[in-house]
Amino acid sequence: MPDPIRFYFDFSSPYGYLASQRIGNVAARHGRTVDWHPILLGFIFRVTGQTPLLDQPMRGAYFTRDMQRTAREWGVPLVMPEHFPFHSVAASRAFYWLKESAPDRAVAFANAIYGAYWGQGRDVDKPEQVAEVAAGLGLDGDALREALGEGAVKDRLKAEMDAAMGQGVFGSPTMLVDGEMFFGCDKFEQMERWLESGGW
Amino acid sequence: MPDPIRFYFDFSSPYGYLASQRIGNVAARHGRTVDWHPILLGFIFRVTGQTPLLDQPMRGAYFTRDMQRTAREWGVPLVMPEHFPFHSVAASRAFYWLKESAPDRAVAFANAIYGAYWGQGRDVDKPEQVAEVAAGLGLDGDALREALGEGAVKDRLKAEMDAAMGQGVFGSPTMLVDGEMFFGCDKFEQMERWLESGGW
Repeated sequence: MPDPIRFYFDFSSPYGYLASQRIGNVAARHGRTVDWHPILLGFIFRVTGQTPLLDQPMRGAYFTRDMQRTAREWGVPLVMPEHFPFHSVAASRAFYWLKESAPDRAVAFANAIYGAYWGQGRDVDKPEQVAEVAAGLGLDGDALREALGEGAVKDRLKAEMDAAMGQGVFGSPTMLVDGEMFFGCDKFEQMERWLESGGW
Repeated sequence: MPDPIRFYFDFSSPYGYLASQRIGNVAARHGRTVDWHPILLGFIFRVTGQTPLLDQPMRGAYFTRDMQRTAREWGVPLVMPEHFPFHSVAASRAFYWLKESAPDRAVAFANAIYGAYWGQGRDVDKPEQVAEVAAGLGLDGDALREALGEGAVKDRLKAEMDAAMGQGVFGSPTMLVDGEMFFGCDKFEQMERWLESGGW
């Protein structure tokens, strides 16, 4: 079995959301699974000097249009949330906690957070909102809510951020295929050719 | 005859160079011609707050690798020039002057500038180097060298820059298909689907 595709995304990233809708099928077509890794772009931007994409002069207008164009092409529901960007630390901590405590449900949780925020425009920044999304999947929302305050859970996200940045991850979505990095929704075709051929 | 694809690029941009190698064939496949427009990213960066891509922390390392990976896949010779980025004002002015005075040679000139810089790593920032590239194509290098100092030639580039920014062009390469904008080498597949279908 070849290694999973490592998939890095910020829950606040529209292109991360779009990629999340496609990455599973792409991986499966090439006999791969997906290892999901939420990240916090805000921390990475302190190193790269970037600002949130949709807020950038000129670039923001283009990418706002492009994300909607890509969503339409892919058949993915996408709304522009009223509160954007959002601080995705609670959702990210919850994901990694679930990855430990209920590993077969973590991806369903990630999809539910993305669906609530980018599919429906619902706020999911507060711990109680994140717990509610988890409870909607039949998970123990109270236990999750409590876990979000634990030092070990906070440390896990920090360690994941360090590891991601150590790999050179600077944006959302980023896909690592056997260590080869592909950044952005527009890289799916090239990444599939790489998966197919083993690289060039 | 449908409108040409408007193609915006900076001679100093590696992805502009890669796109220049592909845009003609892509357009021809869809019954289009290409209208070439060199731009100066340095001026646009003052508005967008961006810096040269390859110099950005973390991002620079990725895009340096990605441009080489894409060049290999496309079969395009690409070297990292010793002097990068370069101030492409002389080459851009020369292009627009040729577009007026020898319109059927302007694209060949653009390809020669790109080939000299990104294909061979030769400096093409000084007016005499630009004139030499033109002379190598059998064009009148002395006349071109002289034209580069003329007010009307300088004004033409300024007007082109104003028009490009007025259209929202912020990067290289940018393609406009009937007013619909596609940014980046990674957009060729989606742009081709747009050309094929007439949009969605």
